[in-house]
Amino acid sequence: MSKTKEKFMLEAIKLANDGMNSGKGGPFGAIVVQDGKIIGRGNNRVTTSNDPTAHAEVVAIRDACKNINSFQLENCEIYTSCEPCPMCLGAIYWARPKAVYYAADKIDAANAGFDDAFIYQEIATPINNRKIPMNQLLQKNAQIVFKKWTKKVDKIEY
Amino acid sequence: MSKTKEKFMLEAIKLANDGMNSGKGGPFGAIVVQDGKIIGRGNNRVTTSNDPTAHAEVVAIRDACKNINSFQLENCEIYTSCEPCPMCLGAIYWARPKAVYYAADKIDAANAGFDDAFIYQEIATPINNRKIPMNQLLQKNAQIVFKKWTKKVDKIEY
Repeated sequence: MSKTKEKFMLEAIKLANDGMNSGKGGPFGAIVVQDGKIIGRGNNRVTTSNDPTAHAEVVAIRDACKNINSFQLENCEIYTSCEPCPMCLGAIYWARPKAVYYAADKIDAANAGFDDAFIYQEIATPINNRKIPMNQLLQKNAQIVFKKWTKKVDKIEY
Repeated sequence: MSKTKEKFMLEAIKLANDGMNSGKGGPFGAIVVQDGKIIGRGNNRVTTSNDPTAHAEVVAIRDACKNINSFQLENCEIYTSCEPCPMCLGAIYWARPKAVYYAADKIDAANAGFDDAFIYQEIATPINNRKIPMNQLLQKNAQIVFKKWTKKVDKIEY
């Protein structure tokens, strides 16, 4: 790995450490880099912002997108102090960066009390067999909205 | 399904329809219900808020958590106009509601141009074989932060 990549990862790890020390949330940090420049930063702030989605990667993606006025991070790299959980992975795929670098892995995370194996299992489980009950109703009513969307002429796709 | 559940789902579908018509984003809506009362609302606003994470469920979860000052939705139900994507599923598992109701399913979504099959596949793929390259570096540095976390006495777990 290059010195530049190490420098960026050290910044993500510093955010993890600082966020933990200042009591913002869990020990996770992430940054978004575009053309060699940091354009977004995040650390976990689930407990202090009362936001279960405020994982480091989500916070960094939201920050970067705001800073460059775009909902896509196509030519960007994400550096995260830990392998992303399924939610953050989903966020990463929607943001479409060109690469992701991570330091600790999900085994390290599980050892520190952050076990997302359950969520990986649930996502792979058919929707009707999941631990949180998920039931379908009024499918036809929602299909009508989708039909309108497909015919909408002034829509912005994403 | 009960009339109450249908009433709540119609509200989620109305948010989907209104959000689409007003140009906020994609045709998706969601609400969070606690003790028979709507405590959070969301519609997709990815393109207008420049936030790839602003899916209806994420917006509704963030709104509900803010309104009840909690990072958990333990005794709540989520009604969403469409089966959640992997990111939203992850957000749901971190928020821990007691049940989820959905109207359209992922096949309907794919037919309307929102195909998340690719993301499901990627999450199930080993990290080193994914389409977005994901590489590990400086694992030991991040492990040090996790070690500090496990020893931290004043931490709030989530």
